[in-house]
Formats: sequence, C-alpha cells, structure tokens
Amino acid sequence: MVTSEFDLIARYFTRSSPGGQRALLGVGDDCALINVALGQSLAISTDTLCAGTHFFADADAKSLGHKALAVNLSDLAAMGATPRYATLALTLPNVNEAWVASFADGFFALADAYDCELIGGDTTRGPLSITVTVFGELLAHNAFRRDAAQSGDDVWLSGTVGGAALGLAHLQQKLVLPTTVADRALVRLHAPTPRVHLGVALAGIAHAAIDVSDGLVADLGHIAQRSNGAAVLQWERIPLHPTLLAVAPDWRQSCALSGGDDYELCFTAALTAREAVEAAARSSGTAVTRVGVIVPKGAGMPNVTVNDEHGQPLPLARGGYDHFAAA
Amino acid sequence: MVTSEFDLIARYFTRSSPGGQRALLGVGDDCALINVALGQSLAISTDTLCAGTHFFADADAKSLGHKALAVNLSDLAAMGATPRYATLALTLPNVNEAWVASFADGFFALADAYDCELIGGDTTRGPLSITVTVFGELLAHNAFRRDAAQSGDDVWLSGTVGGAALGLAHLQQKLVLPTTVADRALVRLHAPTPRVHLGVALAGIAHAAIDVSDGLVADLGHIAQRSNGAAVLQWERIPLHPTLLAVAPDWRQSCALSGGDDYELCFTAALTAREAVEAAARSSGTAVTRVGVIVPKGAGMPNVTVNDEHGQPLPLARGGYDHFAAA
Repeated sequence: MVTSEFDLIARYFTRSSPGGQRALLGVGDDCALINVALGQSLAISTDTLCAGTHFFADADAKSLGHKALAVNLSDLAAMGATPRYATLALTLPNVNEAWVASFADGFFALADAYDCELIGGDTTRGPLSITVTVFGELLAHNAFRRDAAQSGDDVWLSGTVGGAALGLAHLQQKLVLPTTVADRALVRLHAPTPRVHLGVALAGIAHAAIDVSDGLVADLGHIAQRSNGAAVLQWERIPLHPTLLAVAPDWRQSCALSGGDDYELCFTAALTAREAVEAAARSSGTAVTRVGVIVPKGAGMPNVTVNDEHGQPLPLARGGYDHFAAA
Repeated sequence: MVTSEFDLIARYFTRSSPGGQRALLGVGDDCALINVALGQSLAISTDTLCAGTHFFADADAKSLGHKALAVNLSDLAAMGATPRYATLALTLPNVNEAWVASFADGFFALADAYDCELIGGDTTRGPLSITVTVFGELLAHNAFRRDAAQSGDDVWLSGTVGGAALGLAHLQQKLVLPTTVADRALVRLHAPTPRVHLGVALAGIAHAAIDVSDGLVADLGHIAQRSNGAAVLQWERIPLHPTLLAVAPDWRQSCALSGGDDYELCFTAALTAREAVEAAARSSGTAVTRVGVIVPKGAGMPNVTVNDEHGQPLPLARGGYDHFAAA
C-alpha cells in the first residue's frame, strides 16, 4: 500500500522541537509564522541537492538528510548568523517509509544539534531532489559579506580541505585508496560539519567569509573579485585533510585547492584581529589556520594565487565545480 | 557553447527591483539579509513544481515562471500576508538560454505586480523542477490559521472554481472541448491569479483561510478538521468557472469540488462580518461568494458536505489530489 503524502509528512516531519517551539506557527498551515528578535536581521539561504548531480541515487538516506541541511547551515555560518529555522522541499520518486525515516533521522539530528526548527515544507513526487531553505538571525552590520575583504587582511581557513574531494574521486573510481583512508575521506564527503559555532564566534571580528563548497580557489576567488582585491596563499600553510598524505602530490593539490564539498569557512580578518580570531576558534572548538593575505589587485593578476615554498605560483589547472560548465 | 551557471544566474536573476531594493542584501552572497518591519511577523511558505507531476515537461517556460511564484504567493494570500521576498531554486536538465529568459519573464512580471523581491536562490543541473520560497509580512494575530474557523461562520470562496481542472482534463485528453472553451480553461490552469490583494484586505475580518490547490472539498476539509467543525456547502451557490457550462453535470461537479489548481481563497468569517467581507472584496477588486457554513461536527459527519438544491448531500467520489495516493 502506498502511504498518502499527508500521512507521510505528518508522521516524520511534524514533531516538537526538543528545545521547545520558537516559531509562532510551524508545519501544517499555508505558511509558517515567525518573529525576528528585536534589532536582529534575518539571513536566508537555499540550496538544492539533486540525485545524479550532487549525490548518487543510492546514497544513504540518513547522510542525505544530514548533508541537505548541513550545506545550508554552512551558508548561515559563512554569514555569521545563528540558525533558527528551516523549510524542506522533498521530491521523491516513490514513498519508501524506511528511506523517509532515515532521512528524517539524519536531518533532525543535525537540526537539533544547532537548535534549528523545521517550520514547513512540501513533499512531491518526482526525481529525488532536496531543497532546504534556512533562516538565521544576526546583527546586519556584522554580516560577513563577500565584498568586505580589505587589503592587508589575513586569509583564514577552518579545519582541513581536500578530504571530501578525495572521497568523491574514490567513489568515481578515479584512484584506488586503502579502505581505511577511503572511509575517512567519505565521512568528509557525506557528513560535513557546518562551521556554525565558529561563524557566530567570529561576528564582529571577520570581514568577509565564504564556505568552501566549490573549491578553495574558486570560492576565495569570489571574495577577492567582489572585494576588488587578490588573495595570495602559501601552499605549505594550507591544512590538508590527513587522507591526502596517502596520495600523490598532484592529487593532494587538486583535492585541496579545487575540490569542493568540504564546507569549511574561508574568511578574512585584519592583521590586528589575529588574537581575536584565535580566541573565537578556541571558544567554538574549531581549528583555524592562517593561509595567506589579501593584496591590492594588480593588472593581470588572478583573483587567487597559491605560491609554493619558493614563492613560485602553482599552476591551478581546474577552477571550482560549475554544474553547467562545458565538459 | 554551454553557459556557466554563474553567468546564467547573473544575467537573468540578478536585477534591481522596479520598486527599489528592500532587502539589505540580495542575490549573490552566501545568504540574503532582510529586516522585518517593527511589530510585523514573517509568513513563510515553500512549494515545488516538478516536471511530470505538476506540469508537462514541454510546458511554456513563461507560464511556469508565473505559476511557480503564483502558487507560493497564493499561500501568503491564504494567511493574509503582504508579499515581500522570494527565493528560487531552479533545477534544469540543461541550459537553454531562451527557456531561462522566458521563465524569468514570467516570474518577474508576477513578482513586480506584487512588489515581491527575488533575494536569492540556487541553480543546479537535474530533472526540471522549481522550488520557490516566499516571505510576507503580517500582524501575527490577524493570520488566517486553518484551526481558526468557528461554528456559525460563513464559508466564502473567491472567484470561480473548476476551470483549471477542466483545462487539465483537456490536456489529458479525457474529454473533447471546443477550442475557445479549452483555451479559457487552460488560462486558469497555467496562469492562476494569487488572491493577494483580497487576502490583505481580509486581515482582521476572516477567521480561517486556505487556497484551493488540491480541490475545494479536500482543502476546506483541512480547515474543518483542524477547527473541529464541519463545513456544509450548497452546490447551487458554488461559483463555477464559465467553461464548466460547456460540459456534462458530472464533469462540472468533479472539476468544481475535487479539481485542484484554481488557487482561489476559501475562507470563513463571522455572520456579522458579511458587509466587511464584501467591502474587502470590492476594495481588492475580487469577486467573493458565500457558499456555506461551518457547523459543530456531529458523530460520523464528514468534514465537508455539499448539498444539492433539495438539501440532499452530493456523492463526493474523489478526494483532493494527493501526489502519493494509491492509484
């Protein structure tokens, strides 16, 4: 028997939040209703994960539930906003109750961890696809806008990069990895940690920020371009995911610089803010590394340069992942 | 040549709103930033239109752009909220510039008509699907909640019903219509008018409301159920779309009572509010018709009864459209 859409929604996505309901009205009416705290602004972001493009159709449902929310929370982190609410538009080819239950498990475990309340959504039949929209509160003047990097700013990176891209390369059978290495890389791909606590702790400290979803060089390039500057990074400073030590140097570079899906925060802050950045990292329990600087953009200069230990720019073969770029 | 995702977004979906920018930060950063007016709450709704489920894959792009936003604005209308912002998550199998341009035309024509600003979104490759999330402002205590209908309330309906379902039946070749009739019905299916102005005018007057997307009986049934009441309608009062006069009585009934996609407002209001409802209808330029009443729910009573001119209940063969219901 096929369960009806309404039963399905009612059973798995209508629940009371462990922290109590913050919304005036949640799932189940024409609209959700929320108030925004006095003096706060609302940050809004939406991201779609689509089978065949962002994940394999047989991907684990619990991981998908986690990741669909994580990539959106990561956008709030990149603005310095505190997560408050989410909506979920779920398109499914058919109703598989075990799948929905697992998906909801993954989604709500992460939502609860960041006190983010599901307030509405839509369930439709069609090719598997998940669109989440998230809402966070922040003081507008603290928002980490992409155009806010200043010449002389340090460029910082949270956590490590390259692990998710290595996991993807493994799944695509582009290289062969020992099982223990592959498993560690796949955790980075399937279960990214949005750097929400770090983003909130950096409010008033960082200037510009972006989350690394399309690759470090491509994403930092957006900050540099929008801020009319150029970023110069030092390769040996870039914090590589430990799994990259198991592969050849060219893989190391392409995963760390051009690989997407790590969802680390790349941000800039004034030289005078170094201690404040490190304190924010400690208070949020997130490692950060200073990887380069923002400089005035000279004629013909690329948005992002990565220098080797001799001060020579590395050749950057690939840009970030662009879903519609010519193959 | 395939245009890149970023070029595409930049060209068609980044624009200044004719009414000036209301958002603090719009398309192009990790998040959009908005303020909510002092004392107002934010109503949020999200709806997905998916090729093969909600429309045919070869549907006109401009109509889709209109409809994807219209069905969402209709949810704001059903809450009594004034549209402010929208986000757009667009999944496309490939980049067809003419298609994107037409889609944007339809989307923005409607957005501009209701002063609704596009503040963000996501474009991905995959099977054609459109998820729009809309944001409107309202006084929370005026919201038309589904559980707010009271015994003795009149049940009202805006405009006419059944035209969209007739258009769909025509497309599905379930009946043969004269071309002029088919064309008029298809306008109802492809280019619904969200009853935004009526919704706003009814604030403080109507009790409960819903937009008729899945069929009058099914949708009004949600109000009745959530309000612990029952709705009793009179068939001869129900405002039929003129095209229904061209078809047999059984089609007339099934289209008007069980057909979806009309996006009219069905709402309840106190008997003492009749003049106020009619004034709101006039001020918003929207026809409204009183079609029935809310009564206390007796044992075994259906959520919705539709009586014929002899006071006999019509047999209601089909419920509303449920995407996952067993065939």
